[in-house]
Amino acid sequence: MRTSQYLLATQKETPAEAEVISHQLMLRAGMVRKLASGLYTWLPTGLRVLNKVAAIVRDEMNKAGAIEISMPVVQPGDLWVESGRWDDYGPELLRIKDRHNRDFVLGPTHEEVVTSLVKNEISSYKQLPLNLYQIQTKFRDEVRPRFGIMRSREFIMKDAYSFHIDAQSLDQTYQRMHQAYCNVFERIGLSYRPVIADSGSIGGAVSHEFHVLADSGEDDIAYSDASDYAANVELAEAIALGQVRAGSAQLTLVDTPGAKTIQAIATLLKCDVKQTVKTLIVKADETSEHEFVALVLRGDHSLNSIKVEKLALIASPLQMADEAAVKAKLYCGFGSLGPVGLSIPVIVDRSAETVADFICGANTEAQHFTGANWQRDVKTYVVEDIRDVVAGDPSPDGNGTLAITKGIEVGHIFQLGDKYSKAMNCGVLTETGKHDLLQMGCYGIGVTRIVAAAIEQHNDKFGIIWPQSIAPFSVVIIPMNMHKSALVKEVAEKLYKDLCDVGVDVLFDDRKERPGVMFNDMELIGIPYSVVIGERNLDNQQIEIKNRKSGEKTLLEVDNLLEYIKNLG
Amino acid sequence: MRTSQYLLATQKETPAEAEVISHQLMLRAGMVRKLASGLYTWLPTGLRVLNKVAAIVRDEMNKAGAIEISMPVVQPGDLWVESGRWDDYGPELLRIKDRHNRDFVLGPTHEEVVTSLVKNEISSYKQLPLNLYQIQTKFRDEVRPRFGIMRSREFIMKDAYSFHIDAQSLDQTYQRMHQAYCNVFERIGLSYRPVIADSGSIGGAVSHEFHVLADSGEDDIAYSDASDYAANVELAEAIALGQVRAGSAQLTLVDTPGAKTIQAIATLLKCDVKQTVKTLIVKADETSEHEFVALVLRGDHSLNSIKVEKLALIASPLQMADEAAVKAKLYCGFGSLGPVGLSIPVIVDRSAETVADFICGANTEAQHFTGANWQRDVKTYVVEDIRDVVAGDPSPDGNGTLAITKGIEVGHIFQLGDKYSKAMNCGVLTETGKHDLLQMGCYGIGVTRIVAAAIEQHNDKFGIIWPQSIAPFSVVIIPMNMHKSALVKEVAEKLYKDLCDVGVDVLFDDRKERPGVMFNDMELIGIPYSVVIGERNLDNQQIEIKNRKSGEKTLLEVDNLLEYIKNLG
Repeated sequence: MRTSQYLLATQKETPAEAEVISHQLMLRAGMVRKLASGLYTWLPTGLRVLNKVAAIVRDEMNKAGAIEISMPVVQPGDLWVESGRWDDYGPELLRIKDRHNRDFVLGPTHEEVVTSLVKNEISSYKQLPLNLYQIQTKFRDEVRPRFGIMRSREFIMKDAYSFHIDAQSLDQTYQRMHQAYCNVFERIGLSYRPVIADSGSIGGAVSHEFHVLADSGEDDIAYSDASDYAANVELAEAIALGQVRAGSAQLTLVDTPGAKTIQAIATLLKCDVKQTVKTLIVKADETSEHEFVALVLRGDHSLNSIKVEKLALIASPLQMADEAAVKAKLYCGFGSLGPVGLSIPVIVDRSAETVADFICGANTEAQHFTGANWQRDVKTYVVEDIRDVVAGDPSPDGNGTLAITKGIEVGHIFQLGDKYSKAMNCGVLTETGKHDLLQMGCYGIGVTRIVAAAIEQHNDKFGIIWPQSIAPFSVVIIPMNMHKSALVKEVAEKLYKDLCDVGVDVLFDDRKERPGVMFNDMELIGIPYSVVIGERNLDNQQIEIKNRKSGEKTLLEVDNLLEYIKNLG
Repeated sequence: MRTSQYLLATQKETPAEAEVISHQLMLRAGMVRKLASGLYTWLPTGLRVLNKVAAIVRDEMNKAGAIEISMPVVQPGDLWVESGRWDDYGPELLRIKDRHNRDFVLGPTHEEVVTSLVKNEISSYKQLPLNLYQIQTKFRDEVRPRFGIMRSREFIMKDAYSFHIDAQSLDQTYQRMHQAYCNVFERIGLSYRPVIADSGSIGGAVSHEFHVLADSGEDDIAYSDASDYAANVELAEAIALGQVRAGSAQLTLVDTPGAKTIQAIATLLKCDVKQTVKTLIVKADETSEHEFVALVLRGDHSLNSIKVEKLALIASPLQMADEAAVKAKLYCGFGSLGPVGLSIPVIVDRSAETVADFICGANTEAQHFTGANWQRDVKTYVVEDIRDVVAGDPSPDGNGTLAITKGIEVGHIFQLGDKYSKAMNCGVLTETGKHDLLQMGCYGIGVTRIVAAAIEQHNDKFGIIWPQSIAPFSVVIIPMNMHKSALVKEVAEKLYKDLCDVGVDVLFDDRKERPGVMFNDMELIGIPYSVVIGERNLDNQQIEIKNRKSGEKTLLEVDNLLEYIKNLG
């Protein structure tokens, strides 16, 4: 491709609208343009990258035995009624009416459509397992689209759906897809982690997310420094920090005027916050005889609402109690609550249980206990894992210590079980002749989002640094003052032709621009190698090739250049 | 690909819902499934064909200098208000509201979006010409979707848009795209015609359609038997059949009781219908001082409404006059109208003008004139081309005679001029420093429709006959009773591996099915070559290869097979 016949569309200024680096660089490098909130046009440079990502995803899906199909973007609403998601899904599901006033949706995901398809096409266990995928435009009407194509409304997703006669077969395909996802991110050249995840509203029991590690990530990931263990902090199991032991101190009531926070109590009583516990009041499940439940954490720990919501006693979604209602019930405000003598159910975090002789609110305004102990002073309570893990916690797999990092979610795989096959009655005849519901898995990759995540991980102050696997071009030819030098022009044109002939994805910057403008543009776009052709080097039969990532410059004999470029990684 | 790990989805019965052969065969061959009216899922076999068509289109676009981008499916309504098409476009334009109650549309075409893009990106004539294309999902809310994917609501289109500083540059790109379209259809292996077309609601002056010739086509195409001339019948110029001459007969009033049609008049008066003229009354344009206009055609010709609508005097869209209103104005009903003594403007078709001594209505109920002549009996009239051409007409380019055939429109190219650039103020600075509006062209190919059109043109009673260029697989291996013969299995497996290794797109039918079932399925799907591996032939070191199109069977030495298949066209 010649730049003179291309839409380069680079920009010098950083657009004010772009908060994250990938969004800034995608606009500046001429990869995308905003059409409206959450809607982006992919310009030629961006589309080249996107297509390379999609090709790698497609290849790994095919190798994993998945079969490509293409389902409509527009889906009938009645299928969503059948699955129950017409009501469950929020306004992210864009509902539309056609000219005959019939309900349709713009597909954010395709469980309903594919289950309906398989229900009609597959009748026997002999046709299973079956794994169908597509790479397709999706729409999710985000309330606040942001970070460019990272969280846009229209986006490209690879979504796969597998169908099985039993859980064992589902697990086999799930593991195969897990491996295929690892292959995708490794081939692209991204630093990533598969992490244990919550399956959320999609449903099902087992689930992993795939995160590209980057400081700008919206998710916190806990991972072991000594094993493969990694989980979204939402879900990472928090191990008890130490053994449960009986204390020796006496339960003592102390005045704590004005000390309403854990930090204030620790300062006032001159103790470590780890010696304190804090008590939070949340609403009980409506089937409970109680209105409230008390949650007790070590003073320095934070509540994990995802874990708490899954407990039987607790209302879901989690609702913190209103202070006035708590006062009316417990005769004490939020600053001085504690588990001793409380009239509502008490759930104690595993690590809070290991604190002996602890300090806690006394359920009387401006008073606390010191020297409190479980069992002796608090008779009835249950122990659960209700806190977020923190850096330094032991890894729940028993190997090493947890660290926390930021990640960008680019993939998510689920063992759905029979959630959709049950709702839509999708089954087959088994070997023994009975009709069984199918087990399903589903597997998503954010194809557009990978592009942004790769930039978040690979950039410097000059612009993007593409891994060769997904670079818009492998090499750029930058001729210096070609329009004045017949020799430069001749060598550049010949090299361009030779590279095209051997199938190298090459850009030829044949614009009438100053060398500095060309260098800046090509570093911004992030092409892995620049071949700089200038008269001075040509006088010595040499050409310079520059590595975008390392900055290293190599002088090569003109005659060796073609072979050298063909062998670049 | 092995059929045992594939979704073959063939069907024996012809689905009742499918009217045309391509729709029937696409369902039976497991290429598509209907999700809802006008919405189809592409199954693996169909998607393979679709992707091959798209790849050919993409390659020819790139060769023609067009640059690929990807614009959103969902477009802001305000752009359509800006271009004026928010009001002009009918209910085929699906209008939707997002969660914030803002107007959007599902894109049926992208003139607005691309014009808005180019307006922002291009500022100088030096960046022109520019030709941008995409291959993308479109939506048109057809009132009556039919013929499967031939006229569906969701479909894949290649749409390109070119931008130019002047009409000459536009014409150059237009010719280049015309050639690229010819290349696409030739490479696929379709019998097609580029035809002169009406530019309709898209706008602009010059326009060509590309039609795949097939009896089931919805369009009538007139083409010369002696030149390249071809045009949609809607637009084909009708030449006067003969010279205008003065007649010799006397104008005579005759009674024609009960004869209300041209055929009845000809029978009653024992003359050729070619000796009669018929008079149709249509509404005049609202700027006219008249309410009606009379249109006069030779008795055997039919009115071309597209041609008539373009005439200055006539209301557009064309509206035939109501008989009661005509009677009130002209004191005569439809059966006895004629041009002699009529009080409203008269437009005479070129060929009607060449009839001397003609028969026409006398503007009195149940009476006609014989021996009527232009000029002598009808003083004031204008002559225009207002009829459809018919087979046997002289070709308007002066070479040969017209024939009429049916075509399926698969492409349409337009010289738009400044219709959109004017409405949306899209211009650049010219060489002389002034701001000029851009000239635009647009170029569409129905990628999904090509698949159906190819089947309409290439099928027999056994199923589809794919051209090799877009066949879902190039070759299928059919082993006879592989599950009983270790030798057949060994040879088949080895051949499959060898073909995969050299990159042949091969299907291996490894199902436990009777040979007859396999043969029928593979003929239905239309794979160009079947390699039949059976014990009897293997005993002679031979394998049979069958050509789907010719039915020809060839016996080959096992050792020569691989080379033979690699060289198949």
